[in-house]
Amino acid sequence: MSFTYNRTVRFQDTDAAGVVYFANVLSFCHEAYEESLEASSINLKEFFTNPSVAFPIVHASVDFLRPMFGGDKLLISLIPQKIGGDKFEITYEITVTEVMVAKAITRHVCIDASSRSKQELPDEIIQWLGMNHRDAESAERRKSREIM
Amino acid sequence: MSFTYNRTVRFQDTDAAGVVYFANVLSFCHEAYEESLEASSINLKEFFTNPSVAFPIVHASVDFLRPMFGGDKLLISLIPQKIGGDKFEITYEITVTEVMVAKAITRHVCIDASSRSKQELPDEIIQWLGMNHRDAESAERRKSREIM
Amino acid sequence: MSFTYNRTVRFQDTDAAGVVYFANVLSFCHEAYEESLEASSINLKEFFTNPSVAFPIVHASVDFLRPMFGGDKLLISLIPQKIGGDKFEITYEITVTEVMVAKAITRHVCIDASSRSKQELPDEIIQWLGMNHRDAESAERRKSREIM
Amino acid sequence: MSFTYNRTVRFQDTDAAGVVYFANVLSFCHEAYEESLEASSINLKEFFTNPSVAFPIVHASVDFLRPMFGGDKLLISLIPQKIGGDKFEITYEITVTEVMVAKAITRHVCIDASSRSKQELPDEIIQWLGMNHRDAESAERRKSREIM
Repeated sequence: MSFTYNRTVRFQDTDAAGVVYFANVLSFCHEAYEESLEASSINLKEFFTNPSVAFPIVHASVDFLRPMFGGDKLLISLIPQKIGGDKFEITYEITVTEVMVAKAITRHVCIDASSRSKQELPDEIIQWLGMNHRDAESAERRKSREIM
Repeated sequence: MSFTYNRTVRFQDTDAAGVVYFANVLSFCHEAYEESLEASSINLKEFFTNPSVAFPIVHASVDFLRPMFGGDKLLISLIPQKIGGDKFEITYEITVTEVMVAKAITRHVCIDASSRSKQELPDEIIQWLGMNHRDAESAERRKSREIM
Repeated sequence: MSFTYNRTVRFQDTDAAGVVYFANVLSFCHEAYEESLEASSINLKEFFTNPSVAFPIVHASVDFLRPMFGGDKLLISLIPQKIGGDKFEITYEITVTEVMVAKAITRHVCIDASSRSKQELPDEIIQWLGMNHRDAESAERRKSREIM
Repeated sequence: MSFTYNRTVRFQDTDAAGVVYFANVLSFCHEAYEESLEASSINLKEFFTNPSVAFPIVHASVDFLRPMFGGDKLLISLIPQKIGGDKFEITYEITVTEVMVAKAITRHVCIDASSRSKQELPDEIIQWLGMNHRDAESAERRKSREIM
């Protein structure tokens, strides 16, 4: 099973059109990413406050399939994948009561936080990638068996 | 016991000073308010999307006692109180590992959502006020007993 | 010349990494879109508050080339383009002192705001598209002449 | 004349009630504060990114007099005042077409950014306070003369 994160849409997330403001959907995805890091025993405070290594996003994209409303219960599932020695990509699927409402991608590069030069992914991220990717693979296999 | 809401500080909530951006603390409080409404069986989607009655905030204040960092686990407790036929006030206390980090107040007035004229608090809000206030009173009594 | 919008990076736009939080860059782009609508004599209040026709974003993507810091003076240029009877796409380029820092795209579909069914782009949007596209074409021609 | 800042309400600032989300009004005020610092020749990037001295907000309050809508043109005027060797307070008034829509206060304390211990207000802030306070006093005197 891929990592999943539950998130209620807050009043603040909506705009005058009565639905979630588009850019906020990427913030929901980032929350899921943070939650998955924590589930992998990474200390969020150290990770985000004055770290020696950082993982800035170099690309993000999002597709909106249905509007999300205040009070909606979102289920965000994420699958991270290593795409180079110093890069990884995360794909996200957001559903409400099992109906897909949005899909997104964030691509991250690993840098030294002070010099901002690229560097190899550290062990804790390799471990996080492995854990979540293995989970995703088992889920895929389970799905295949169910279909057969 | 007063109503409590658990909230992890997200990366998005912080600013370049490395701590939570001040105005976001009021948003955390509003989330706790939304959660308490839902716990009182109020449908959030109906409450916030095209409602006939609305409860806009006419006053808010917040005191910051200690900085909050990304990853911090906040516990927000709230106590609402009726302060007139068409008004209520909510007081919030935010703690991190039992240390108080912020206190806040929001004051709400009840209006007809289309005409924006004031009106009496509806039954579902009276019930929500009663439930949370009674809880708060029991907590106070319990505290007194513990002191004695 | 394509439409341009000046925007100072605010403290609120940054996160604990000391730079602009990624999703906020899409909000900057949306602000530029709003400003270009207003420059085309579209009344923003009517456009966004209880309109009969709406233009929700169905896709967005953004590439981050360099970090943006609090206080940075952004110049956002945008070029909208009709991509169907009921769709348009906007491309954005963000520069700081003539250095490109980000590029983005938003794709919008035209819907009836109450039924949420697709409909043809209305005249005021066709006019806005024409105005900004013509500007963009002249800029391209001017650039070509300068190169020759 | 007190320092003034013009700000258009953006779509992002609104919520599903069709008006500005309450906590965002304090962010508008903070933007006005940032703009006034810059007008006093303070470099915002240095001020907010890894500074040696910081001015965290210890108290904020806001009164909402009328709703603000997407597209509204806000005029925010601010008056800062020294309230101790290591503290200052800013009062803000927000108007739309000369009608007051909100009033707010932020109270700031001066700290050493690394140790977080209180310290005396530095010269550049004393100068900013003087400049804006003198302006405010002249405005008051002008008003008195106009009344007489």
